[in-house]
Amino acid sequence: MRYSTFFPKARKQEFKEDLSTNAILLTKGGFIDQLMAGSYTLLPLGFRVVENIKNIIREELNAEGAQELLMPLLHPREIWDQTGRWSDPEVQKIMYQFKDVHRREYGLSFTHEEIVMNLLSKFVKSYKDLPVAVYHFSTKFRNEPRAKSGILRTREFFMKDLYSAHATEADMADYYNKIKDAYIRVFKRIGFPEVKVVEAAGGVFTDKKSHEFQIVSDVGEDEILFCDRKDKCECKFAQNKEIYKGLPDNKCPGCSDGCLIKSARAIEVGNIFPLGTKYSEAQKVFYTDEGGEQKPIWFASYGIGPTRVIGALVEVFHDERGIIWPKSVAPFQVYLISLDGKSINTEAQKVYETLNENNIEVLWDDRDTSAGEKFANADLLGFPYRLVVSEKSGDKIELKKREEGKEELLEASQVISKINEG
Amino acid sequence: MRYSTFFPKARKQEFKEDLSTNAILLTKGGFIDQLMAGSYTLLPLGFRVVENIKNIIREELNAEGAQELLMPLLHPREIWDQTGRWSDPEVQKIMYQFKDVHRREYGLSFTHEEIVMNLLSKFVKSYKDLPVAVYHFSTKFRNEPRAKSGILRTREFFMKDLYSAHATEADMADYYNKIKDAYIRVFKRIGFPEVKVVEAAGGVFTDKKSHEFQIVSDVGEDEILFCDRKDKCECKFAQNKEIYKGLPDNKCPGCSDGCLIKSARAIEVGNIFPLGTKYSEAQKVFYTDEGGEQKPIWFASYGIGPTRVIGALVEVFHDERGIIWPKSVAPFQVYLISLDGKSINTEAQKVYETLNENNIEVLWDDRDTSAGEKFANADLLGFPYRLVVSEKSGDKIELKKREEGKEELLEASQVISKINEG
Repeated sequence: MRYSTFFPKARKQEFKEDLSTNAILLTKGGFIDQLMAGSYTLLPLGFRVVENIKNIIREELNAEGAQELLMPLLHPREIWDQTGRWSDPEVQKIMYQFKDVHRREYGLSFTHEEIVMNLLSKFVKSYKDLPVAVYHFSTKFRNEPRAKSGILRTREFFMKDLYSAHATEADMADYYNKIKDAYIRVFKRIGFPEVKVVEAAGGVFTDKKSHEFQIVSDVGEDEILFCDRKDKCECKFAQNKEIYKGLPDNKCPGCSDGCLIKSARAIEVGNIFPLGTKYSEAQKVFYTDEGGEQKPIWFASYGIGPTRVIGALVEVFHDERGIIWPKSVAPFQVYLISLDGKSINTEAQKVYETLNENNIEVLWDDRDTSAGEKFANADLLGFPYRLVVSEKSGDKIELKKREEGKEELLEASQVISKINEG
Repeated sequence: MRYSTFFPKARKQEFKEDLSTNAILLTKGGFIDQLMAGSYTLLPLGFRVVENIKNIIREELNAEGAQELLMPLLHPREIWDQTGRWSDPEVQKIMYQFKDVHRREYGLSFTHEEIVMNLLSKFVKSYKDLPVAVYHFSTKFRNEPRAKSGILRTREFFMKDLYSAHATEADMADYYNKIKDAYIRVFKRIGFPEVKVVEAAGGVFTDKKSHEFQIVSDVGEDEILFCDRKDKCECKFAQNKEIYKGLPDNKCPGCSDGCLIKSARAIEVGNIFPLGTKYSEAQKVFYTDEGGEQKPIWFASYGIGPTRVIGALVEVFHDERGIIWPKSVAPFQVYLISLDGKSINTEAQKVYETLNENNIEVLWDDRDTSAGEKFANADLLGFPYRLVVSEKSGDKIELKKREEGKEELLEASQVISKINEG
């Protein structure tokens, strides 16, 4: 696409210094726009990043046999009453609940356990109908008292939630572990150098322990404690501070070879809950087992917040000039800059077309503006490759990777292979 | 995918006869599930149809330079107050409005004109920043007093809404006509034999006339009047009954060669509104023109409801046995049936893999159930092709198109080319 007709352009104004890095860079670059406190529009650039993240999640979940659907956001009180969560003071703090003009009561979705259980009750009769794993990408609402600038904690956000239903605890545990591994693959493919799988409390979802997927970052709201592994130690101990009960001398509770515990701030980008039979018993969703007996369904739920993932990515991948998107989720692979006027534009047009023909996504800064502004914008938007066509580059193309300082002069065909090879 | 592990299976129960055909067939087939009156989950089969419809819309809108984004669903009252629509009694009838625990007032989105205008106010300063065309697919809420069974009129639905902003009325009119043509292409590609472009009132959106895209169907809620064209008459006169002022003797007001007016019930699947400067003036969104003067932005909005489109498709394309999906939007192209036990299953497995390798989407009914049930299910779900592998078919495959009665015995390679050729 051409940046001259792209909506919107990057913003030039300066921002208050107390804003988080992700809020400043994403807002300046034109990835997001704040509608009100805790609520953002995903602008075309941000939307493209989310779509890339969604596709990675989709591929990994489909590979585990999960099926995509779309559930409603407006929930009738009656279904939430079945588990008692409607009236749970902790739920009422975060769930928007209201009456319509006919005094019917509704809640806005912040999660879908009750709704999935209601759906399963209509289709799951026998052990032959299990297991079931369904997910959707949809909007969540949370009456967030701590809404902060940026997209790490908002009142309305985009989320993938997966629910799995099983005949036995063993089958649930097995699938739970498969999804745990799938999540690790998802975050790796998205580009995070490391994701910590952390034991945590179950919150308003379950009395059992859950697992969080945490990205270490100073702006994270969570504090996590994990094994500061020595060589050869394979310990995976990691807990959220909420549940951590330390040992004397800061020793790691997970291993016996004298490792110590380390602490860090972290951003939670995903969480998974082994819910057991709490929901099926409360909502009376039973199946008939092979012996003809009625049994409650075993249930688990799994969330990833793609918008929050974007915030975490920007916190991890940026420098003083702007964002540095990993290739796998970048909104475009190439920021193409043409300088020095009309004759060059013809050259740039050719490069632009060649990239498009090779299915390399390119945003061409074809504006009639200064070289300095175009270079600064390339760094702010942070696509993996910057290409420059100018009088200086002659019949070649100047290529620079966003994360490296080095420029190279290359033929068009070399540019294509360089980008395709990563 | 394999039907044995697919969620959910078709339902066997009978439905009340007063339900609409789309409600019955989509519910029985497992395309949708009702959560409460006027609210449905799109189950995996229904979700796949919606995704196919979305892709067609996306391609046609992107070709007209529109850009995809995602806007919030929870709107602050203040922005809706700028146009006065928050307090408009007609709006209050359909918009869910509520206060949170801090007495802040929110509305749930049924449309986004005010929100888009608010967004444009931050980015559009000069005529150089125009035109802008942005759209999203998102959930809409409507406090619908007439919620009916099926997905034609619901309280929560999925919608594509596009908004365009222009420097001049002429530019707006030009783009409005382009999108009108794009919509005609969309509905043609989706598979409707004809879509009527009908003049209508602007409702709560504008005092100007709008255009509706109507599919003739007895279950439609609208009555439309249109020229019953004679040979060679090119008249496109069509109006919603709401605004129709007839001529004596039932003459068509649009042409002078004696055509008459015909009336029909129809389902509205899209609508477009030339909004003019009503919103930009009320919300004070001005741009600086080439002469340095401040001018209000010209604005238009355009909607298509993919879930309602599905309902209309089923009303138009069905017979007494089930749905007949057009190829372009069918959830799978092939319903593969294997009969006669295990040795056949090996054959069927080969066919299944060949289809997948050729990127032909196939649902394989590999259940241990009767031939009659499988055939009935193939007809109910209505994919374009039914393939049967059985002892009778030998080393060939029996192919039947859903909309034709005729069966053919073919080699695998012939099956592939037949399906690819359409």
